Amino acid sequence: MVLQSTSPLVVVANSLPFVVVEDAKGNRVRKQCPSGLVTAVAPAVVETGGLWVGWPGIYEEDKPGPIPEPSPDDDSPSAGLKTEQVVPVILPHQLFDDFYNGCCHSCFWPLFHSMPDRALFRSEKWQAYLAVNKQFAIQAVNAVKTSLERQPNSVPLVWIHGYQMMCVANFIRNICDAEKIKVKIAFFLHIPFPSWDIMRLFPWDDELLQNILCADFIGFHIEDYCFNFIDCCQRRLGCRTDRARMLVEHNNRTVSVRALPISIPYERFQALAESAPAVVKNNPEELIMLGIDQLDYTKGLVHRLKAFERLLKNHPEHREKVVLIQVVVPSRTDMKVYRDLKDELDTEIGKLNGCFSTANWSPIRYICAYVSQEQLAAFYRDSSVALVAPLRDGMSLVAKEFVACQTKEPGVLVLSPFAGAGIDMTEALQVNPYETELYAETIHRAITMPKEEREMRMFRLRRQVREKDVNYWLESFFKSVNCYANTDEIPSGKLSPLREDDFNSFLDHYVTETSKLALLLDYDGTLAPIAPNPDLAVLPAETKKVLVRLANMPDVYIAIISGRSLENVMKMVGIEGLTYAGNHGFQIRHPDGSQFVHPVPHEFNEKLDKLRELLKPVCKHGAWLEDKDIGMTFHYREVPDDLAAEIIAKAEECFVSAGIEPHPSHKAFEARPPVLWDKGRAAIRILCSLFGVDWSDRISVIFAGDDKTDEDAMKALQGMAISFRVTASKNVKTVANHRLPSTDSVLTMLKWIERRFSARPFDASKPVLPNSSLNQSPGSTSSRVPQRVPSVSEDIILTMTMSDEPMVSPKASGLASPANAEISLKE
Amino acid sequence: MVLQSTSPLVVVANSLPFVVVEDAKGNRVRKQCPSGLVTAVAPAVVETGGLWVGWPGIYEEDKPGPIPEPSPDDDSPSAGLKTEQVVPVILPHQLFDDFYNGCCHSCFWPLFHSMPDRALFRSEKWQAYLAVNKQFAIQAVNAVKTSLERQPNSVPLVWIHGYQMMCVANFIRNICDAEKIKVKIAFFLHIPFPSWDIMRLFPWDDELLQNILCADFIGFHIEDYCFNFIDCCQRRLGCRTDRARMLVEHNNRTVSVRALPISIPYERFQALAESAPAVVKNNPEELIMLGIDQLDYTKGLVHRLKAFERLLKNHPEHREKVVLIQVVVPSRTDMKVYRDLKDELDTEIGKLNGCFSTANWSPIRYICAYVSQEQLAAFYRDSSVALVAPLRDGMSLVAKEFVACQTKEPGVLVLSPFAGAGIDMTEALQVNPYETELYAETIHRAITMPKEEREMRMFRLRRQVREKDVNYWLESFFKSVNCYANTDEIPSGKLSPLREDDFNSFLDHYVTETSKLALLLDYDGTLAPIAPNPDLAVLPAETKKVLVRLANMPDVYIAIISGRSLENVMKMVGIEGLTYAGNHGFQIRHPDGSQFVHPVPHEFNEKLDKLRELLKPVCKHGAWLEDKDIGMTFHYREVPDDLAAEIIAKAEECFVSAGIEPHPSHKAFEARPPVLWDKGRAAIRILCSLFGVDWSDRISVIFAGDDKTDEDAMKALQGMAISFRVTASKNVKTVANHRLPSTDSVLTMLKWIERRFSARPFDASKPVLPNSSLNQSPGSTSSRVPQRVPSVSEDIILTMTMSDEPMVSPKASGLASPANAEISLKE
Repeated sequence: MVLQSTSPLVVVANSLPFVVVEDAKGNRVRKQCPSGLVTAVAPAVVETGGLWVGWPGIYEEDKPGPIPEPSPDDDSPSAGLKTEQVVPVILPHQLFDDFYNGCCHSCFWPLFHSMPDRALFRSEKWQAYLAVNKQFAIQAVNAVKTSLERQPNSVPLVWIHGYQMMCVANFIRNICDAEKIKVKIAFFLHIPFPSWDIMRLFPWDDELLQNILCADFIGFHIEDYCFNFIDCCQRRLGCRTDRARMLVEHNNRTVSVRALPISIPYERFQALAESAPAVVKNNPEELIMLGIDQLDYTKGLVHRLKAFERLLKNHPEHREKVVLIQVVVPSRTDMKVYRDLKDELDTEIGKLNGCFSTANWSPIRYICAYVSQEQLAAFYRDSSVALVAPLRDGMSLVAKEFVACQTKEPGVLVLSPFAGAGIDMTEALQVNPYETELYAETIHRAITMPKEEREMRMFRLRRQVREKDVNYWLESFFKSVNCYANTDEIPSGKLSPLREDDFNSFLDHYVTETSKLALLLDYDGTLAPIAPNPDLAVLPAETKKVLVRLANMPDVYIAIISGRSLENVMKMVGIEGLTYAGNHGFQIRHPDGSQFVHPVPHEFNEKLDKLRELLKPVCKHGAWLEDKDIGMTFHYREVPDDLAAEIIAKAEECFVSAGIEPHPSHKAFEARPPVLWDKGRAAIRILCSLFGVDWSDRISVIFAGDDKTDEDAMKALQGMAISFRVTASKNVKTVANHRLPSTDSVLTMLKWIERRFSARPFDASKPVLPNSSLNQSPGSTSSRVPQRVPSVSEDIILTMTMSDEPMVSPKASGLASPANAEISLKE
Repeated sequence: MVLQSTSPLVVVANSLPFVVVEDAKGNRVRKQCPSGLVTAVAPAVVETGGLWVGWPGIYEEDKPGPIPEPSPDDDSPSAGLKTEQVVPVILPHQLFDDFYNGCCHSCFWPLFHSMPDRALFRSEKWQAYLAVNKQFAIQAVNAVKTSLERQPNSVPLVWIHGYQMMCVANFIRNICDAEKIKVKIAFFLHIPFPSWDIMRLFPWDDELLQNILCADFIGFHIEDYCFNFIDCCQRRLGCRTDRARMLVEHNNRTVSVRALPISIPYERFQALAESAPAVVKNNPEELIMLGIDQLDYTKGLVHRLKAFERLLKNHPEHREKVVLIQVVVPSRTDMKVYRDLKDELDTEIGKLNGCFSTANWSPIRYICAYVSQEQLAAFYRDSSVALVAPLRDGMSLVAKEFVACQTKEPGVLVLSPFAGAGIDMTEALQVNPYETELYAETIHRAITMPKEEREMRMFRLRRQVREKDVNYWLESFFKSVNCYANTDEIPSGKLSPLREDDFNSFLDHYVTETSKLALLLDYDGTLAPIAPNPDLAVLPAETKKVLVRLANMPDVYIAIISGRSLENVMKMVGIEGLTYAGNHGFQIRHPDGSQFVHPVPHEFNEKLDKLRELLKPVCKHGAWLEDKDIGMTFHYREVPDDLAAEIIAKAEECFVSAGIEPHPSHKAFEARPPVLWDKGRAAIRILCSLFGVDWSDRISVIFAGDDKTDEDAMKALQGMAISFRVTASKNVKTVANHRLPSTDSVLTMLKWIERRFSARPFDASKPVLPNSSLNQSPGSTSSRVPQRVPSVSEDIILTMTMSDEPMVSPKASGLASPANAEISLKE
């Protein structure tokens, strides 16, 4: 194999291709760990001079020294891996155990194999998983930097492997984005990806999926796994997807998903089979059946024993004629569930042998040990039947190895449809391992299959594995990630940009023909793009026009709920006929001029005065303080990156000294009144006061926001409204129904709504009141629209300050003191 | 509720609405068994004078007498059910136990709840399930007959309920078809239907799905379950489906699938809540949290306890302020897994109470008992928070009951997304029961939710449950099954008839641009419709024309493999240039005249002579004997139904006496040579001799057949060819990739192939040989087509009888004696 990849390769896997152990003399040496992954990937790393990031089998507590040099008599696939190509990840024992046994094996392994009953979901183990993945990412970025030193101006390819490393891509991207390093990130999963019905049991599936989506390219073994993944992204994250082209859009990025069935080095296995010594039989006619499995509950070992027992009962003619060589490779013996499984196997095999053995024959030759590749090849070659029948398995490479080694009399492969290999290797006899009777009959059929059929099936299987061997897999992968071009582009195509029609699927079922619509919208980052200074965050002209037209429609109500002061947000939006809520909803002003102001304790204002004094000396290097009607905001957006940490720390100190909690916002801290009030409660207050507590009978609600404070509203309205979170960031946890990548896409949504509602006839029954005058700021071009008062439900009494006067600054009129306006519900 | 159904209603459920028990005096009386199903359906049966088929809680061994009359003080929903409306199904205890505990609860319950690890798949339990379902079906048909006596000329509606009764529709249809009774059959599943990834673990999923599809209408709670079911039908049975209209086509029938979320009698629960006495609290401010669950591992009871414990730890402010009333309704205590769960619960609750209780307060009031409806309503009404958080649940009616009873201060519903109710009741707070921390925080949010939000959420929930109550559900169901019209039609629409384009999805991926195609086709029932007498089974003119054109195409090879004699099938098809195989492949004749005849032992012919003698007296009432080149066939197709059983029995006796196995065929028994040879081996022989053992490199193969003997070929070619089983019968188990409803659809397939291949350029490299003459029968209009000899692979030596002479009857020339023709592979 000659790889011409121009991208330096950095492989990240849970384990290095070897572990570091002490030899008899107490020297640290490499001990190779053969696996499908190592066999497949190590030659590519060796050949291209790439790097391998992984765990060397020792912990921080073991006082690890340098990685030992390869042993001269090593003939494994990773023998050529020089020490300078190895980047070890060394972690504390406990952390690694929480990650590896606590999360990987106790949660993801059974869950991804669709055995949810066995999965344990524990928050602290998931946290350990994230922490360990972050450490791997840090080392991976170091490896990227090393690659760039060795090969400047290239775009390194980081290739992450396995279900233990699903969140590495996210952390790599975080660091690389911050440090402006160009990389391509690919992730390949070596186990199945479960269906949505199973995946959604994982309590942090939202976070996990977003972490995975930080890769540019995601590979699975078979298409079913790809579609499961795409389904999950669509249903959990509300991503736009293209199943035909296997694309997922998230945070304005298009991620390519592809089925690449892993394979084996066919030639190598064939060569081994041609030279390996013969397996000794009890008699020349004896027929060997073969099982080779890791010790694992997913492998269906006990089911196989039952089927074999049934075979010997139903078809006694096979007694003394066949032998089952069952190799079990020990694994994870530090977990009770695996020790129990081992005990069960031992007992069952003991019983079975005891029951059927004769003077010259035992039905099962049970080998519980690692077996050399050469021995393996001999078993494969000399077996007449291979039983590869797991309950669930990502691929089952054993099936391909058997086929590659079948150089003599053709045997029969018995394969479970629940193995990934079952998809392509259709010429094998399929067997459902759960059905003992049919399983036994299928083995019988395999044993007695006419030579002509054996020949034609094995011929086809061999042809297929030969053509699609591991090199084919590697080559397909490198092509898929565009490894031969010095770019970070993946040539998979993109989803077309978000269009009006995309909102059909988001909103069609909710915004029905007859419903009226309330639009609750945040301002900064939702309607207007974020600007370095709030004064520069101007409402785009097109958005304004659409809002004006919407405000004019009989069935649409609009409320703007902002963190800005009421006065300020009204000025920035400058459209009449809307409800405005300022200060995260502490002040609400309806189109008829009626106002609501949430009461604020007097002590808070005293604390604010103290905070203002304290923060004065911190307002430097671009940091500044914004006084609001209620509370204030400390902005550090313009502080240079190298000074930010210090300024932030100092500001936080000031908040603490003043006795006020610093609420983080967009590169800012907000001082908010210490009362149970937020955008969520404000949203509910607006809806209930305008439309009654039974508003949901009459009106559909859409909420859009971009901020953590908007999540309060999304949460309060969850299940009662459709909400959109505007975000192009990674790993934003949101209760919103959908994500939108930018303020542009909010505009697209507004246009969708306009189109939908302008198709309706005008509702003449709607009362239309004359305008009340709005406070006009000189800069804004406020549009004058007929103002409407919604019908207020009868079980609500409004007691509020009615104002026909132009609004005055609440601060000037002392509005920040406890309530002078209140809406109370009749109870 | 006034139902105006014109169809008499027969409900079939595992249980009657009551069990028969002995009272204190030793009299047999009814004991009502409340359940969501009974509450929902019993009033409809009572009101319409329908019938209820079910198990009365006693066994054959209990010497059951007549069903007792209802008790006068009964106020349950099924109180009005008269004894004449009850059809009890009484079975042996062991059989019922195998069915109920062995299959329903040990297999389907965990499997359908996506907990496959807990599912046990045992053939004998599945057989018991089928046997019990058949008994229910027999009683259901009796009920149908009773209905027809009471209401002649109507079309009864049989409404089957529950996962215990999934195969009843099939048996009912069998009997009703045989007895020419018109019925409509609906099936409703009250638990989830799992995804394909889970369903396919069930070893008899093929049979199960076909059994379910014998209903005309299939209802599930939510759309997700519907789509899971449709997916399974498509992937396992190769059915054509329409996801948008939720239709599945099977055996020429279109089955309608619909989501109908079951509900509760809202008014009744509200009335109960209004009159029930108050729940006693430790102090007036105490806040009640409520859990009401059956004892079951799907309910997440232990998870709830963990979350409650976490709540008390994280938020000590709730100690002494909240109490969790946990009602656990005992169930299935005869199964160990349920007893273990009970023990675990007891222990955990004991621990938790021990840990947190104070002098005046215990955190959990644990009630492990049946609770009256009135008491239940009081709990629902007086609770501030209801925890309905199963790990998986079909619907969770408790959520709706809670909401209906919330007549006072509005409380908060905490609901799992894994309950069916979670789909519609979006206004509840959602919680993933697997995540203790978030679970605790969600309970905290529920306890502290502002009144305004509680009000608006509960308002909406109540409105929804009130509008979509159980009557709405019943009404929707009756409309869906067209209950108000005296017809057996379901107004759901039909899939358009099978068209050429449908074969795109079957064959596009397999018949690629470059591949050549071998078509292996059975004759009777595949190309030609079955006729009362084989001589009348003529090849339709259009089919013949298409076959002739196909035979003329350079890249298409055709072989006809039939049970008829070689001579006869050649005569019936009458097309040159094809390979013909007669007698299930014992004789094969290639277009160049070369022949293969499988050797037959001499003794067999002696036995045949004996059989011929023995069968002579049985050949009456239309039964007749067909002598073939190899073997013979005894036909009883024309024997009148009432005599058939006797004739069949006598014929079988003759076969046994003659020492020949009777192979059942289409209303016939075949005597076949006792050698390992069948259509499968013949198919492989044809392919290998024409195209070499590596034929699969050069050629795609399509096989079509309608018969059990064709399954041999489908099996032999499984995974290497695409096969079609022609069948309009129910419950045909096939290894074919797809099913076709009729010989017409085979013609459609042939046309698809013609269209596909006629688009190709002619392959001039193909050798074309001059015609060899075919034996022309007077009646047939054999088409003369240029005959082609395929390129024979070099590693095969053909040693066969080459014949340029018109074929003579093999019998006349002694072909039935051991081989005079053989193809041997060079090995």
